[in-house]
Amino acid sequence: MARKSSLSGFPEWLPQERLVELHVLDILRRTFELHGFSNVETRAVETVGQLLRKGEIDKEVYAVSRLQDEDGSAPAGEDSLALHFDLTVPFARYVVENAGYLAFPFRRYQIQKVWRGERPQEGRAREFTQADIDVVGDGSLPFRYDVEIALVIAEALSALPIPDFQLRVNNRKLAEGFYRGIGLTDTPGVLRSIDKLEKIGAGRVAELLKAELGATDEQAKAALSLAEIRTPDTSFVERVRAFGVTDPLLDEGLAELEQVIAEASKRAPGKVIADLSIARGLDYYTGTVYETVLVGHEALGSICSGGRYDALASKGNRTFPGVGLSIGVTRLVTRILSQEFAAATRQVPTAVLVTLANDDSWSAAQDVAAALRSRGIPVEVAASAEKFGKQIKFADRRGIPFVWFTSEDGTHEVKDIRSGEQVSADPRSWTPPAEDQWPAVLPQG
Amino acid sequence: MARKSSLSGFPEWLPQERLVELHVLDILRRTFELHGFSNVETRAVETVGQLLRKGEIDKEVYAVSRLQDEDGSAPAGEDSLALHFDLTVPFARYVVENAGYLAFPFRRYQIQKVWRGERPQEGRAREFTQADIDVVGDGSLPFRYDVEIALVIAEALSALPIPDFQLRVNNRKLAEGFYRGIGLTDTPGVLRSIDKLEKIGAGRVAELLKAELGATDEQAKAALSLAEIRTPDTSFVERVRAFGVTDPLLDEGLAELEQVIAEASKRAPGKVIADLSIARGLDYYTGTVYETVLVGHEALGSICSGGRYDALASKGNRTFPGVGLSIGVTRLVTRILSQEFAAATRQVPTAVLVTLANDDSWSAAQDVAAALRSRGIPVEVAASAEKFGKQIKFADRRGIPFVWFTSEDGTHEVKDIRSGEQVSADPRSWTPPAEDQWPAVLPQG
Repeated sequence: MARKSSLSGFPEWLPQERLVELHVLDILRRTFELHGFSNVETRAVETVGQLLRKGEIDKEVYAVSRLQDEDGSAPAGEDSLALHFDLTVPFARYVVENAGYLAFPFRRYQIQKVWRGERPQEGRAREFTQADIDVVGDGSLPFRYDVEIALVIAEALSALPIPDFQLRVNNRKLAEGFYRGIGLTDTPGVLRSIDKLEKIGAGRVAELLKAELGATDEQAKAALSLAEIRTPDTSFVERVRAFGVTDPLLDEGLAELEQVIAEASKRAPGKVIADLSIARGLDYYTGTVYETVLVGHEALGSICSGGRYDALASKGNRTFPGVGLSIGVTRLVTRILSQEFAAATRQVPTAVLVTLANDDSWSAAQDVAAALRSRGIPVEVAASAEKFGKQIKFADRRGIPFVWFTSEDGTHEVKDIRSGEQVSADPRSWTPPAEDQWPAVLPQG
Repeated sequence: MARKSSLSGFPEWLPQERLVELHVLDILRRTFELHGFSNVETRAVETVGQLLRKGEIDKEVYAVSRLQDEDGSAPAGEDSLALHFDLTVPFARYVVENAGYLAFPFRRYQIQKVWRGERPQEGRAREFTQADIDVVGDGSLPFRYDVEIALVIAEALSALPIPDFQLRVNNRKLAEGFYRGIGLTDTPGVLRSIDKLEKIGAGRVAELLKAELGATDEQAKAALSLAEIRTPDTSFVERVRAFGVTDPLLDEGLAELEQVIAEASKRAPGKVIADLSIARGLDYYTGTVYETVLVGHEALGSICSGGRYDALASKGNRTFPGVGLSIGVTRLVTRILSQEFAAATRQVPTAVLVTLANDDSWSAAQDVAAALRSRGIPVEVAASAEKFGKQIKFADRRGIPFVWFTSEDGTHEVKDIRSGEQVSADPRSWTPPAEDQWPAVLPQG
């Protein structure tokens, strides 16, 4: 990609690149709807109070204020507005506000832009599109949704023009129960350290555990050994049991993760694996946690993450547990384009250019176009009666495969400008080959 | 609509309302693509310098700044960021930046949120969706696109579940030439006054013309009489000629508007009319101008406006003339919902709920679901083996029309819970009636 965006961190696509993104979005929408997820959109802004509700956040937030209000002192406080940095916080608010109108368990998908004022870098933009699915219950939510949602995502990702992926699953209860079982009580602290494994390596994590959390050599070693377990099947259970650590929370987590992996390894073999190093940093998950990498592109980071919350939202005594996953659409599309995993077969929707023999024939040409469009064929009409060579060049430059000619005697011919083949045709019945009707996005190389 | 949005001016839809909006967006996308328009999205933010480029603007702009940067002094200046208030300014920038990669004339559609910090009121939100189509040329752009783009919009609006509409067309050259011809030289001033006609009435506009622009009684009367002309055909030409005013720009404008109305009155009879009162306020149009009202809902304001620019954008000596129209999607959808012009046939995509006879049958139920989905049928699987009555109620509350039962002996039955009819079925071949496969959005009453 020779082109650079004019504002760092705010990618914009050319029309033929946007076709690839639309292709990805269409697949996601269709897959989610085939699984019964309803679409929702939330406003781009939340109050700062809402965004900071969970206390500590590690996201850089963009504040919003009316330009005409600015007199040197920016508005501040809980009620001031800011752009959402994910779709989970807005969805939690939406659920609470509309609880009386929703049928629980409520399954929704949401595909929108989010904004983070972080330093832009490869795979990290300041404005990007996320595609989220969540199932949220009223009071309780069967664990089976933790299994189902992983399978929906595996199905969606499998339909995209991307390399093999691995959906790596862990369980907070398993990890926290294990740490507690070996005597490390600051389980969030351990999780935060383990989350740095990929970045700083096992040696530095061991140092952190010892220096900051007072772990012994043995405790640090056990915590790191747990994080090394990665299995495509339920054999992780035996390996964890082999440590001889006992804790009721550990048992619960093992049983939950076993349920996810048992079903997923059957229905999506090789796509969903148990990975006991997954920690999900500061996010407030309470059970299952998910991350996803593209095989061979691990450095890109997770392209789809999520997990289970005991309380995605709450309203007085009422809590709404949820489980969800979020696909980083912009990160995926950027990689598809930069690695040329897929490309559109042409730049424009148009399949047929109706040419003009003379300037008075524009209206008749519109009749031809309307007849073709009524059968779902995308058509443009030339704007002026230039030489046919120029009109054909207009089509050729855009990758429009067919040009249409109408003679003064009212007969029609259509030419495939790739093969040069020209045949007579009736606008009321002629149809292009199915693969030419709309631009397609095809895997490359 | 009993529900109120929690932040004034930022509407959010319930899932069944969002289905109506998606229906509108799908129709617009399909219509635009059938006419060969390519999709583009631009970033949500522009630099303040870019947004204020045209000097005077009448839009309230939302500034964006990193929350963590705020130390009491808000960032300011040309390079600071703000949310776009329309899709025209961002598109103009996009065209200039990517001119080397685009094939001109370039036809694009763009469907995105825009933000304006104005006082929220009926039909006016602070965050709303616009759907724009524009054709932009490099150096020149045939006038025929002014005709074509009106026809594309008429076709798109005709496919929506809304009442009759009128696309009202005028021409700046016609108006300015006429004012000049009667001796009023401050033509932007006259246009600004005429633009207030609907709001303050003819009497007050006449006073404005006299007080502010020094118009005589006769001049004010002539300017107001011109604005009274509204014809469904080209008869406006004769009525303008009857004033006996002569001016070359007037002639040019008359010829252009005649061309639009002549073709449009033939291809979209009654939908596109000449209306010589249309002024489009502060917008920098240079020829054709468009506004659209819903018949019987004129007070809602224009639901689709636009026009021709001599220079949508420019880059050194190079200018990019354009013509475009913008549909106020949120304004339309708000009205469709509040007036119940249309509604979704159910709340969720799901057509079939696969029930569980016992908790161990979940995996087998997923097999049934996968078989149905492979033929494009949206399916959910029950999460737990509650009593069948409860599982049926789950479907009923969401409007899911079919529930699926699998007995222990492996036979299948499917029940239409509306009629109560239950038949045996094969997951590899059973298909619901076409009208039940996906939720439909149907006109009401």
